[in-house]
Amino acid sequence: MEPAQFSTPLDLHNIQVKDGFWTRQQDLVTDKVLPYQWNALNDNLPDALPSYSMHNFRAAARIMEKKHRSQANATQSYTPPVYTYRGFEALPEDPAHPDPEQFYGFVFQDSDFSKWIEAVGYSLIRHPDPQLEKLADGAIDVVCAAQDDTGYLDTYYIVNGMDRAFTNLRDHHELYCLGHLLEGAISYYQATGKDKLLKAAERFADYCFTVFGENPDQKKGYPGHEIAEMALFRLYELTGEERYKKLASFFLDQRGTKPSYFRQEDYARAALDHTTYQPTEEKEHPTWFEATPYAYYQAHKPVREQTEAVGHAVRAVYLYSGMADAARINRDDKMLAACEALWNNITGEKLYITGGIGATHFGEAFSYGYDLPNDTAYSESCAAIGLIFFARRMLQIKPDRRYSDVMEQALYNTVMAGMDLTGTRFFYVNPLEANPLASLRDEHKHHVRTMRQKWFGCACCPPNIARLLSSLASYATTENENTLWNHLYVGSRIQKHLGSTDQNTHSGNDRENTSASHILVQEMTSALPWSGEVQVHLTGDGTKASASYRIPSWSRSTRITLQQGAESYELTLGAESSYSWPVSEDRLVFSYENGYFTVTGPIRDLTICLSFTLECRLVKASNRVREDAHKVCLVRGPLVYCLEEIDNGRDLHLLEIPLSQKGAAPVFTEEETSAFGYPVILVKTEGIRKKPDEIALYQDADAPEPAEETTLTFVPYYLWNNRGEGEMSVWIYKS
Amino acid sequence: MEPAQFSTPLDLHNIQVKDGFWTRQQDLVTDKVLPYQWNALNDNLPDALPSYSMHNFRAAARIMEKKHRSQANATQSYTPPVYTYRGFEALPEDPAHPDPEQFYGFVFQDSDFSKWIEAVGYSLIRHPDPQLEKLADGAIDVVCAAQDDTGYLDTYYIVNGMDRAFTNLRDHHELYCLGHLLEGAISYYQATGKDKLLKAAERFADYCFTVFGENPDQKKGYPGHEIAEMALFRLYELTGEERYKKLASFFLDQRGTKPSYFRQEDYARAALDHTTYQPTEEKEHPTWFEATPYAYYQAHKPVREQTEAVGHAVRAVYLYSGMADAARINRDDKMLAACEALWNNITGEKLYITGGIGATHFGEAFSYGYDLPNDTAYSESCAAIGLIFFARRMLQIKPDRRYSDVMEQALYNTVMAGMDLTGTRFFYVNPLEANPLASLRDEHKHHVRTMRQKWFGCACCPPNIARLLSSLASYATTENENTLWNHLYVGSRIQKHLGSTDQNTHSGNDRENTSASHILVQEMTSALPWSGEVQVHLTGDGTKASASYRIPSWSRSTRITLQQGAESYELTLGAESSYSWPVSEDRLVFSYENGYFTVTGPIRDLTICLSFTLECRLVKASNRVREDAHKVCLVRGPLVYCLEEIDNGRDLHLLEIPLSQKGAAPVFTEEETSAFGYPVILVKTEGIRKKPDEIALYQDADAPEPAEETTLTFVPYYLWNNRGEGEMSVWIYKS
Repeated sequence: MEPAQFSTPLDLHNIQVKDGFWTRQQDLVTDKVLPYQWNALNDNLPDALPSYSMHNFRAAARIMEKKHRSQANATQSYTPPVYTYRGFEALPEDPAHPDPEQFYGFVFQDSDFSKWIEAVGYSLIRHPDPQLEKLADGAIDVVCAAQDDTGYLDTYYIVNGMDRAFTNLRDHHELYCLGHLLEGAISYYQATGKDKLLKAAERFADYCFTVFGENPDQKKGYPGHEIAEMALFRLYELTGEERYKKLASFFLDQRGTKPSYFRQEDYARAALDHTTYQPTEEKEHPTWFEATPYAYYQAHKPVREQTEAVGHAVRAVYLYSGMADAARINRDDKMLAACEALWNNITGEKLYITGGIGATHFGEAFSYGYDLPNDTAYSESCAAIGLIFFARRMLQIKPDRRYSDVMEQALYNTVMAGMDLTGTRFFYVNPLEANPLASLRDEHKHHVRTMRQKWFGCACCPPNIARLLSSLASYATTENENTLWNHLYVGSRIQKHLGSTDQNTHSGNDRENTSASHILVQEMTSALPWSGEVQVHLTGDGTKASASYRIPSWSRSTRITLQQGAESYELTLGAESSYSWPVSEDRLVFSYENGYFTVTGPIRDLTICLSFTLECRLVKASNRVREDAHKVCLVRGPLVYCLEEIDNGRDLHLLEIPLSQKGAAPVFTEEETSAFGYPVILVKTEGIRKKPDEIALYQDADAPEPAEETTLTFVPYYLWNNRGEGEMSVWIYKS
Repeated sequence: MEPAQFSTPLDLHNIQVKDGFWTRQQDLVTDKVLPYQWNALNDNLPDALPSYSMHNFRAAARIMEKKHRSQANATQSYTPPVYTYRGFEALPEDPAHPDPEQFYGFVFQDSDFSKWIEAVGYSLIRHPDPQLEKLADGAIDVVCAAQDDTGYLDTYYIVNGMDRAFTNLRDHHELYCLGHLLEGAISYYQATGKDKLLKAAERFADYCFTVFGENPDQKKGYPGHEIAEMALFRLYELTGEERYKKLASFFLDQRGTKPSYFRQEDYARAALDHTTYQPTEEKEHPTWFEATPYAYYQAHKPVREQTEAVGHAVRAVYLYSGMADAARINRDDKMLAACEALWNNITGEKLYITGGIGATHFGEAFSYGYDLPNDTAYSESCAAIGLIFFARRMLQIKPDRRYSDVMEQALYNTVMAGMDLTGTRFFYVNPLEANPLASLRDEHKHHVRTMRQKWFGCACCPPNIARLLSSLASYATTENENTLWNHLYVGSRIQKHLGSTDQNTHSGNDRENTSASHILVQEMTSALPWSGEVQVHLTGDGTKASASYRIPSWSRSTRITLQQGAESYELTLGAESSYSWPVSEDRLVFSYENGYFTVTGPIRDLTICLSFTLECRLVKASNRVREDAHKVCLVRGPLVYCLEEIDNGRDLHLLEIPLSQKGAAPVFTEEETSAFGYPVILVKTEGIRKKPDEIALYQDADAPEPAEETTLTFVPYYLWNNRGEGEMSVWIYKS
């Protein structure tokens, strides 16, 4: 570990995004997703399942009010609620009249609010909006009124009885809700400087710090759904309070130790019920999950011993994100080694070319190595987002395009595919091959929707897309005292105070009071993803600083020109990821390491032009991936392309791209289309269409197979299903 | 319909099988399967789930005895049992001490006995065995003692309370048990002449005839799991009693009519419980099954309107078998048209090359057209057997090799694969591609076992294989008054009474008293499936008769020589299925129609040599089958071959058979091996093995892919997994 390479995400106040591609996405979040989501939180969507999130906070607030009234006035008796487990998703008997003192929906429904407030915070930084802020403040009042006097804040148990709080960490998501609450509260605090929610979230974290720990009277548990780890580290970095770092590290250290805490909980809950826990009988023919207890939760072995990414994919990458934070913050080499092993396992064996992860819908989980089915893929939007979280945290330890290339791949393809052009329809599952008939008739593919949905009962994906897109700048660029690392190319203006990182501190909005007077401004325009031209203009007072730019691995040859005053340079970088220049007497010094080109020196008025080779390429998968055998995929820069029925007709599996004639590389024609409301580049090439057989089901192998020449039309994968329902395929047979 | 072409299966007394291939299989059934199955019926298998079949009959017999005692002696009070539904599979609290008056196991457990006694009957004809017959007689005594005075005989309701009998036809299998009881009773009667069980079964059928029918006070229901239809027709053909034909036809006519009887039952049961039936809510995103109520049971529309094979595959082909019986017996053209449409749908779109059907494990059901996945295939052994039942009944209407080719395909491949070489291990599911790692880690493939099992909780397949193999001769040959139709080639000696069909009649073993004195004897030796030579010797008294032989469609050219006295002929038939000879003045007249070569004339001492072309062929699937795209399969005569890991190493998907060089057809080497305990022909050919990629998960499409020449070794599919666990694939990539 080289702490000199450590970096932190950019303070969103210091960056203004103005990008030909991304501004539109961020505006969609602000204009469409946030209001829509607020209605979802308040059960005001006519054709979507109610969230009950705000209902539950109000119910808990009523309970708390009764309790306080009885404490204030001894004559008013108060009977605390008795815990009643009503299944994983409790619904009102009469949906039109939910009981105002009952909890409804999934046990993790509190997090719906937290994800919304987090995105609201990011959005308010970009785009101040007093009305939205007032709405948010009102919601925060409700949430804070629901908090128990201990600091505990999970409405499921406040409503149903606190005597059972923290007795089912495996399934009941209280620490997951803590994690999201922290993320939301920090975002809103950073945006507005208002700390009411942050104080409440801290009180919940403080209470957890008393409940969980090494002492004999403390619980030795850890979250059933991870996120609290990275959220607590974020709180630690904001406040500097050691106890948050300690609690996050405790959760990580406890995870997967033997005897299993989750199993101990089973026995303890049975004892509370005055029964005896009966382990389920071992099956004669168990599934791998059944044979590997708690692998779904990544709790099958201690985290530093984990080398294969397994189980629920979102849980997994949320955990790995927390592990990467721990590796950096605690300078924990073993933790870092585990993170690297897990990263390599994912990207070497378990990553779709779209940046999606979690190949199977059973447990929304990672499958085994090289098992990457296209038509039954799960590839949850949230899992791709979690992979971006993990990547950013690895980049914070050490800039390396192995991380940022994948971050970009997941962002431009799977995350972007998760939302439609209108910002009102969403995919939870992101297949690489879709066929409406198969999704209708084949139950193996029933989870693969071939139309984006309005909302989901378990509405994790839309808010997750919202919070990622609205905080995109904090993924694009990280910094340390004197360096800006540009991982993604997002048109923007950045103002960096040299000699400090500009994260808000707990003492509030004192950004203006930092002692650093040296300011570096980076203005960037980017033509990505359609063209490879990036212009950067750096302005400073001549203080020595570094600016580092990722050279994407998809750019076979990158031309870089630099100009500052009379100094000017022109360089070309090839496919390799590192290069050494002779030590130069020039005033600007270059380095190129792990795919990052860095210029260091006194910066006054430096112009950098990066010209990436952004061309159509055909890619194949490792032949260990059975599902992609004999197939290729078209990529162009960061974008994966696909075939859609609307352009290419039905039976996409009958299309082929001819490659076998040596020397006859396919010719790709790029065409701008307005079919998607803004300029998008389509790709066309000559291919072959086999005619569907009309004869017997089986026939001699040498029976003729009539085929005709055809034009294949490819569109960016993220845009699929914006023009109606139909077949789609990322992979195409070669012949 | 041409009744002149109608035929009936051969009486098993009139055929002695002595075949190089099949005798071994039949002996395995007699020597291994029947004793094993008897132990299963009596819960005496140490490492298999108990059947409780005989236990339940004994429990019901105790109930009946109590009832009779109380009737005989008015002082002894008798309280009838009260119906208690204890789930689809009720198990004793203490497995070591089942309650002797309780019912256990699946609701259809009575049929375990019936399938056993049916196979016992067939086996006793082949191989008389007084000890086995005594055992069977004892079991029959128990079964008959369990029968209710009304004739009703299903132990689930006799034990749990007759007041709920026939209130859940959809799920509770009473009519399924009736069907199997009839099949078993007829077989045992035909074998031994003993009619105790037959009389009991007839009484049950008679009782059903009073319960179900057109009259207002009769139930309008039909079986939830079909089989009673074909069994009742069999009973009708045995006894000539019209009521059995009427009841079978009633069940068929009622099926799928609106309003749904099954739905009416839901309401009626709720009324019995003094509650109101609540239909389950319609889902926002239903599966096809959910959106097509009762398609699982083939009860979604009237049977004559059904043109697509859907739902549970075993149920489906059992239904279609009954429909084919009805078409023939009732001369019902609309029914025949439905049967033909269903046959064409199965064989044109839904048939694995192994003769397996039912592509999906969800509902053990047919999938949509051309959806024939290899690695998630269900292809249940029982479904292939049911397809053989359906084929034989279509052949009874009209001999056409479209039916018998498929019958042969299912028999030699899927049915044979269902049992191992020792007759003690079984496959329920018959995949066309297997990978132990995938079956362990991928829940989509968890149902695909990569080792045959000892037995199954729902033990339908092993007894079904037993009853089919032991009655194989009745599928190989059918007859009408003066014709023998040879559908399959099984070495045997057949004695046919000309002028009659020799089915037992209800009056008993009076075969010797038939008036026909003209006897035709057919002696056949067959080298199938290893070589295409079949010799037939027909001996008669010169009475005019016909003998008809299927020319398999896999034989591209068939040489036939015939010799009788001074007459001799030599013919060659090509790939077409019909041919007209000029009307000949010769004494023997030939015809060739629908793939059947028929010789007619006065037969005294006629020798026929059939020489089929039995060669290695590569076959491809219709390009509408996505899962077989760019792949071929090796077949040789009736046998489908496959690749196994033990011969070809791991990663079978990296093997290719080179076909693209024009004119360079692969050379196949046939080798006899003794690896399977008897001579088996392996096939070898030169192929290509790609080396597994060691580098990145994704790379440029033109990156080199090192490959080496290798010898591919194919074994007959039915023998896979007899030499340990490993990968297997029927389909191989071509290059």
